[in-house]
Amino acid sequence: MKNLKRDIDFIIELDKLKKIKRKTKLIGTNIEEDDAQHSWHISIMALILEEYADEDLDILKVLEMLLIHDLVEIYAGDTFAYDEEGHKDKEERELKAANKLYSLLGEKKGDKFKSLWLEFEEGKSKEAVFAIAMDRLQPILLNYHNSGGTWKEYGIKKEQILKRVKPVMDTSKELGKFINELLDTAVIEGKLSE
Amino acid sequence: MKNLKRDIDFIIELDKLKKIKRKTKLIGTNIEEDDAQHSWHISIMALILEEYADEDLDILKVLEMLLIHDLVEIYAGDTFAYDEEGHKDKEERELKAANKLYSLLGEKKGDKFKSLWLEFEEGKSKEAVFAIAMDRLQPILLNYHNSGGTWKEYGIKKEQILKRVKPVMDTSKELGKFINELLDTAVIEGKLSE
Repeated sequence: MKNLKRDIDFIIELDKLKKIKRKTKLIGTNIEEDDAQHSWHISIMALILEEYADEDLDILKVLEMLLIHDLVEIYAGDTFAYDEEGHKDKEERELKAANKLYSLLGEKKGDKFKSLWLEFEEGKSKEAVFAIAMDRLQPILLNYHNSGGTWKEYGIKKEQILKRVKPVMDTSKELGKFINELLDTAVIEGKLSE
Repeated sequence: MKNLKRDIDFIIELDKLKKIKRKTKLIGTNIEEDDAQHSWHISIMALILEEYADEDLDILKVLEMLLIHDLVEIYAGDTFAYDEEGHKDKEERELKAANKLYSLLGEKKGDKFKSLWLEFEEGKSKEAVFAIAMDRLQPILLNYHNSGGTWKEYGIKKEQILKRVKPVMDTSKELGKFINELLDTAVIEGKLSE
């Protein structure tokens, strides 16, 4: 059943995503990026980079995943990619957050959104792998153009990033080659430790 | 011809959209929303509110329009909806900005993006009308939940908003009815002048 008041209340609740800060900084600044800006950036990246995917994609599904993938952080907060402690209960915290959030939206759309989010988290479908690749590639671009950014700030090593970006290699040979070269250059330029 | 370096440079340039401030404030704060946050919010709104449209829509096209509709503001800046002076040369400034921006992306994707932006600006196709409706509806929700927000700050009257939200009425009877009731309530609650 449609319920416009409930849908509008949900849209109002989503405003909070703009206040969830990430570790990555906007290029050329010390301003932390927020989840809403990040979600927009990776969505438009998907439109631009779709043609590099090794397989044909349902790009609408990719966009839906990217637009909603961080919503759980409204209640669960952002977990830094290289925060091992924070990752121990990340799954549990986020599932609880998803149940709380999507129940606000009612069964039909709530279930659809939650199932898109779970598909993204599982990372098995080709759309999920491509979406995750965008999510992982974007902070690398920002850090590279911020003289190392959070890599230097938190002493992240190339090896740690290579593990994180496996979905980039899995979704596109060309993007995989690009990211390998970029990380090599980052090491040579002293932006990233070997 | 694909050109990954050019595409990545374009993606880097887009980071600037996160620094373009709008007049509207995030709910419960005095923090100005930026164009990237706004573009994300209206894109996810489109997913949530699509079912209220009076006609079936190509929702992928709507999302593409919403994700890119503000990019010209990277060079042309934001023009406040009720700034009559700023609107005199808005079209010219934005067309110049579009030509500069989309030439960075190369012919194939640059032309596609520019033509989506023009379709949005012209506001004739059913997808453009729905996309514009999302763009107009969103700041109303924020202002209403900010005790009048920029309506009070700039002395905006209900009549001015009614002109701006015509695309909402045109795209959906239900959303049109909702917005009329919301504006009436805003007047009764002293958030908006008659």
